[in-house]
Amino acid sequence: MTPKDATATRERILDSAADLFNQRGYWGTSLSDLLAATGLEKGGLYHHFGSKEALALEAFDHAVDRLRVRIRESLAPHREAVPRLHAAIDNYVAFVERPPVAGGCPLLNTAVESDDTHPALRERAAAAMTELVDDTFGRILTRGVERGELAADLDVEGTAALFVAAIEGGIMLSKLYGDNDYMRRTARRLHDLADSLATAGTAGTRTRRRSSR
Amino acid sequence: MTPKDATATRERILDSAADLFNQRGYWGTSLSDLLAATGLEKGGLYHHFGSKEALALEAFDHAVDRLRVRIRESLAPHREAVPRLHAAIDNYVAFVERPPVAGGCPLLNTAVESDDTHPALRERAAAAMTELVDDTFGRILTRGVERGELAADLDVEGTAALFVAAIEGGIMLSKLYGDNDYMRRTARRLHDLADSLATAGTAGTRTRRRSSR
Repeated sequence: MTPKDATATRERILDSAADLFNQRGYWGTSLSDLLAATGLEKGGLYHHFGSKEALALEAFDHAVDRLRVRIRESLAPHREAVPRLHAAIDNYVAFVERPPVAGGCPLLNTAVESDDTHPALRERAAAAMTELVDDTFGRILTRGVERGELAADLDVEGTAALFVAAIEGGIMLSKLYGDNDYMRRTARRLHDLADSLATAGTAGTRTRRRSSR
Repeated sequence: MTPKDATATRERILDSAADLFNQRGYWGTSLSDLLAATGLEKGGLYHHFGSKEALALEAFDHAVDRLRVRIRESLAPHREAVPRLHAAIDNYVAFVERPPVAGGCPLLNTAVESDDTHPALRERAAAAMTELVDDTFGRILTRGVERGELAADLDVEGTAALFVAAIEGGIMLSKLYGDNDYMRRTARRLHDLADSLATAGTAGTRTRRRSSR
């Protein structure tokens, strides 16, 4: 196998493992499930990844990479805070409609499963969640305040926490009911909230967003 | 054993099983974990509950009962929609501060774990979630609109979904980080949202709530 083939094989294994762990959870995924999904022999899995745990950690990072690509692409066309918030919300509606990984949000799933049971997975989930709370929503809000697009006294920490909590909870509701409308309803009110944050000078973003859909 | 002793024993077993399943998940809870936590012999567990699955379903209902008592007690002193929303939000802040069941919210945990893996648990989680979305938040909002306390054109479905999504997501964030402040931040913005829903005549609820804390 050339190095390029080896990388492609590894990617394919991580794709399958990410979907499987995200659907069944770490504790609900047996070694035989993993071998069946990845097409590996037992020896091959241990050779390439070392252990079920090591594969689970790498598969989680792989799933988060897929999400990161999506959110960056969603945000890239927009400069101002309010349109960036709308784009981020829409990104998660698209998430339930065209899931980048099977089984719902890997941050949510891994957070809920690992918090009392698996410190290494929990640490990965927390790092990925911090990226979403602080580096994505927190930064959009902070820059929006600095540029005068959002109110100077905006509760940035509370608002970032609310956006992420509601998005993750909305994905959970849609997955639970098998009905994407729960995420759409949640998103509708988050769009309203995003509009309400705009200072007077940028309040026209609402009309622009609505008419662009 | 008298029938009363038998009931007390069953309650004690369900208390332990509810905490264990909620912390470790259905798939992460082994039979030996269950026997150790409940103090049962293997034969006793099968005699009293039939199977691990039957015990898990009953333990879930038992956990939801504990939550139901809490939310009813929180709402009971309040008649109007906005104070009832504030009380419901505060109930979930108290939830992370004094958990009625170990391991976070059983609705959230069971929803996330069961959606792709366990139809019977998923059905229970969906029924309990519907009680929260429609019977608790949906009803508070609908009655508030009918009584003129909330705007006539309020997006009841979207607002109920947002409240539940954000509360469940807030609990998840606090559990993930081991930091109740994530739930408090989320709750702060939900309190603001609740206040913003009041029509002019009932807008004074904000001051009353704040001063009562």
